[in-house]
Amino acid sequence: MSVFILLNCKTYDEGTGANAVKLAEACRDVAESAGVDIAIAPQIPDIFRVASVVDVPVYSQHIDGAGPGSHTGKVYVKAVLEAGAVGSLINHSERRMTLADIETAAGALRANGMASVICTNNIATTAAAAALGPDFVAIEPPELIGSGIPVSKADPGVVTGSVDAVKKINPNVKVLCGAGISKGEDLKAALELGAEGVLLASGIVKAKDPKDALYDLVSLI
Amino acid sequence: MSVFILLNCKTYDEGTGANAVKLAEACRDVAESAGVDIAIAPQIPDIFRVASVVDVPVYSQHIDGAGPGSHTGKVYVKAVLEAGAVGSLINHSERRMTLADIETAAGALRANGMASVICTNNIATTAAAAALGPDFVAIEPPELIGSGIPVSKADPGVVTGSVDAVKKINPNVKVLCGAGISKGEDLKAALELGAEGVLLASGIVKAKDPKDALYDLVSLI
Amino acid sequence: MSVFILLNCKTYDEGTGANAVKLAEACRDVAESAGVDIAIAPQIPDIFRVASVVDVPVYSQHIDGAGPGSHTGKVYVKAVLEAGAVGSLINHSERRMTLADIETAAGALRANGMASVICTNNIATTAAAAALGPDFVAIEPPELIGSGIPVSKADPGVVTGSVDAVKKINPNVKVLCGAGISKGEDLKAALELGAEGVLLASGIVKAKDPKDALYDLVSLI
Amino acid sequence: MSVFILLNCKTYDEGTGANAVKLAEACRDVAESAGVDIAIAPQIPDIFRVASVVDVPVYSQHIDGAGPGSHTGKVYVKAVLEAGAVGSLINHSERRMTLADIETAAGALRANGMASVICTNNIATTAAAAALGPDFVAIEPPELIGSGIPVSKADPGVVTGSVDAVKKINPNVKVLCGAGISKGEDLKAALELGAEGVLLASGIVKAKDPKDALYDLVSLI
Repeated sequence: MSVFILLNCKTYDEGTGANAVKLAEACRDVAESAGVDIAIAPQIPDIFRVASVVDVPVYSQHIDGAGPGSHTGKVYVKAVLEAGAVGSLINHSERRMTLADIETAAGALRANGMASVICTNNIATTAAAAALGPDFVAIEPPELIGSGIPVSKADPGVVTGSVDAVKKINPNVKVLCGAGISKGEDLKAALELGAEGVLLASGIVKAKDPKDALYDLVSLI
Repeated sequence: MSVFILLNCKTYDEGTGANAVKLAEACRDVAESAGVDIAIAPQIPDIFRVASVVDVPVYSQHIDGAGPGSHTGKVYVKAVLEAGAVGSLINHSERRMTLADIETAAGALRANGMASVICTNNIATTAAAAALGPDFVAIEPPELIGSGIPVSKADPGVVTGSVDAVKKINPNVKVLCGAGISKGEDLKAALELGAEGVLLASGIVKAKDPKDALYDLVSLI
Repeated sequence: MSVFILLNCKTYDEGTGANAVKLAEACRDVAESAGVDIAIAPQIPDIFRVASVVDVPVYSQHIDGAGPGSHTGKVYVKAVLEAGAVGSLINHSERRMTLADIETAAGALRANGMASVICTNNIATTAAAAALGPDFVAIEPPELIGSGIPVSKADPGVVTGSVDAVKKINPNVKVLCGAGISKGEDLKAALELGAEGVLLASGIVKAKDPKDALYDLVSLI
Repeated sequence: MSVFILLNCKTYDEGTGANAVKLAEACRDVAESAGVDIAIAPQIPDIFRVASVVDVPVYSQHIDGAGPGSHTGKVYVKAVLEAGAVGSLINHSERRMTLADIETAAGALRANGMASVICTNNIATTAAAAALGPDFVAIEPPELIGSGIPVSKADPGVVTGSVDAVKKINPNVKVLCGAGISKGEDLKAALELGAEGVLLASGIVKAKDPKDALYDLVSLI
C-alpha cells in the first residue's frame, strides 16, 4: 500500500510565497528519499509559483464548484488546473461548503482528471462524503486541529470508525486522517488504524526545520 | 484628473491562465498608448503568472480579511501581495462579504500599501462603503452586470447620487462605476456623471478582439 | 405503506401569519378526510401560532445546528420544539447548509425526538444525506422547483435513482420527492417511482382554493 | 432624553419559550416602574407567543432582506411583523450579514414601520451602518460580548468614537452600546459616553433573578 501525505500550508506566513516554494522543495526531497508520496497545498495565489519551479504534486486548498462565467473571486477548477494543481482539498473545516457545493466541486475535479480530498469532522460526515465518490476523505476532528495532540492517539475510534463506514459505502475511497499529526509515530499509528495517509499542517510548516520534521514523519514506515 | 480602468477577468475561460496573460498585455499596450491607467484583476491563481510577465497593475478579485494562521482556502492579503498584486476588489456582487469582513479586508489592504475597491449595489451601500475609507468604491447595480446596458445610460442617477453621497462622507474616496460598460461612449458618459473610472468585464474579456475593444473604450477621453 | 405529504409555506404572503393558520386547517381537514399524513411547514415565526390552534403536524422550515447559548438569530431546535414543531426541513435549496451543519442539525432533531427531512438536489447528494440517517430525504432538482413541471414527469430517473441509492445506504430512510408537484397524478407518479411522499409548496399555497388543491392531490391514492 | 434598553434572549435555555414570556413580563414590570423603555428580543419562534401575552415591545433577533416568495427558512419581515414584532436586530455579531443584505433588511423594516438596530463591531463599521439610516446602531466589540466586562469601562473610546462618527454622518441615528453590560453603573457610564441606550443579554437572561437584575440596571438613571 502506498502512503499519501498532504501538507497544508494554510495561511501561515511560514508557508506563503517564497516560503511555500521552500516547503515544496522539502516535500520533494523527502518524498524522493523515502519513497513516499508527499503533496503540498500552498495558498491559491502560490499554486502557479510552486508548480512552476518544484517537481511535486500541488493541491489547491479549496475550489468552488463554480464553472466558467460571472463568478468574480471564486476558485474555478480550470484556473487551478492550468496553474499546475493536480488536486484539491474541499470542505476543509476552515472553509466549509454546502453539501451541494461539495458534490459539484468533487464532480468538477473528477471531470478534469484531478484528485479530490473531502475533509470531514466525524464518522457520519465521513460516510456522507464517501457517498460522493471522491478520491480521498480526510477525517479531522476540529477540536484537535492545530492542537498538537494526534487524532490517532486522542480519538483512534474516529479513524477506525471512519475507515469502516467508508469501506461499506465505497471501497474505492481512501481515508486520510488529520488533526495534530506531526511525528513518525503519529503517521504509523494512523496507518495501523486503517488510514492510507495523513493531512497535516502546523506541525511541519511551523517546525524549526520543516525538512527534518518531514524526515521524522516518514521515519517509521 | 486621471482615469482609472479596471478589467475584471471573472472566471471566464477567455480570461483564465494563458488568456489572462494576453489580456494583461492588451491592457498594458493600450494604457501606454492612450496614457490612461488600466489595471487587470485576473483570477487569484493567475495573479503570480500575470504579474511576473506583464508590466501592468494587477488586482486580486477578492481577499478575505483573514490574517496569517489557520485559515485554509482563505485569500490572505500578504499572499496576493507577494504574488504581485497591488490592490484588490472586495465585496463584488458575485462574492459578497459581511460588513465586518469588508472593513477588515479594506484595513488589511491599507496596512499593506495596497489599493482597495469596494463594490456596492446602490447609493446607500456606496455611502456606507465610503465611510470605511477605501481608495475606490465601485457602484454596480447587479441587474445591469453583464447586461450590455451601460449603467451610465440605464441609471445615471445611481452614479451621480453615489458621487454626491461619497463626497459628503469622504471626499478622498474615488467613485468607479460598472455594469454594462464596454464602449468609449459608456466611459465618457461615466466620467461626465462624476465617476473617475470604470470597472468592466465581459464587454472586453469576451470581445472578439479585446485590444481593439480597449482602444475603443479609451477613444473618447 | 403510509403516504407523507409536507406542505412548505416558504415566505409566500399566502402562507404568512393568519394565512398559514388557514392552510394548516386545510391540511388537517384533507388529512382526516383522506386518511393520509399531511404536515405543514409554516415560517418560523408562525410555528407557535399554527401549532397552538390547529391539530396538524407542524414542521420548521429550517433549524441551525446551534445549541443553547450565544447564537443570536439562529434557529435553536428546542425553541421550535417548545413552539410546537414535531420536525424540520434542513438544507432546503433556498437555505443550503454545510455538510457539518446538516449532520449537527439532523442529530439535534433526533436527540429531541423530532423528524428530520434533509433536502437534496441530485442522486449523489441524496446518497450522502442518507448516510446521515435522517427520517426522510427529499430530492428536489432545483431547476424544477416552482416550475409547475413535476419532477416525477420531467426526471423520473432522479427519483428512482435516489430511492435505489438510499436503500443501499440506509433502508430506514424514506424518500420524498419535490419540485413541481401539485396534482393527484404527480403524487401517484411519485409513489409509483418509489417515493413515500412529497414535499410541495406553490402549487397548493398559491392555489385559488388550497383545500380543493389538496383534495385533488390525494384523489388518486 | 429617553433611554432605550433592549434585552437579547439569544438561544439561552433561560430565554426560550415559557422562559422568554417570563423575561418579557420582567421587562414590562421594570419598564413601567422605572419609566424607561425596555424591549425584548426573544428567539424568532417565540415572537408570537411573547407578543400575544405580554405588553412589551418585541424585537426579532434577525431578519433576512428576503421579500415574499421562494425563500424557505428565511426570516421575512412581514412574518415577524404579523407575529407581533415592532423592530429587529440586524447583523448581530453572531449572525453577520452582507452589506447588501443589511441595507435591504433595514429598508424592509423602514418600509413596514418597524425599528431597525444594526449591530457593529468598531467605529468604522458603525459609521458605515449609520450611512444606511437605521433607527439605531449598536456598537459591540465582539471580544467583550458575554465577557462580563462592560464596554463602557473596557473601551470607552469605542463608544465616544462611535457617537461622534454617527452624528457626523446622520444625526438622527441613535447609538446603543453593548457587550458586557449588566449593572446600573454600566448603563450610567454608557449614557455618559453619549449612548442613548444599551443592548444586553447574558447579564440579565442568566441572572439568578432577572427582574432584580433589571431593577439594578435602571437604578442609577
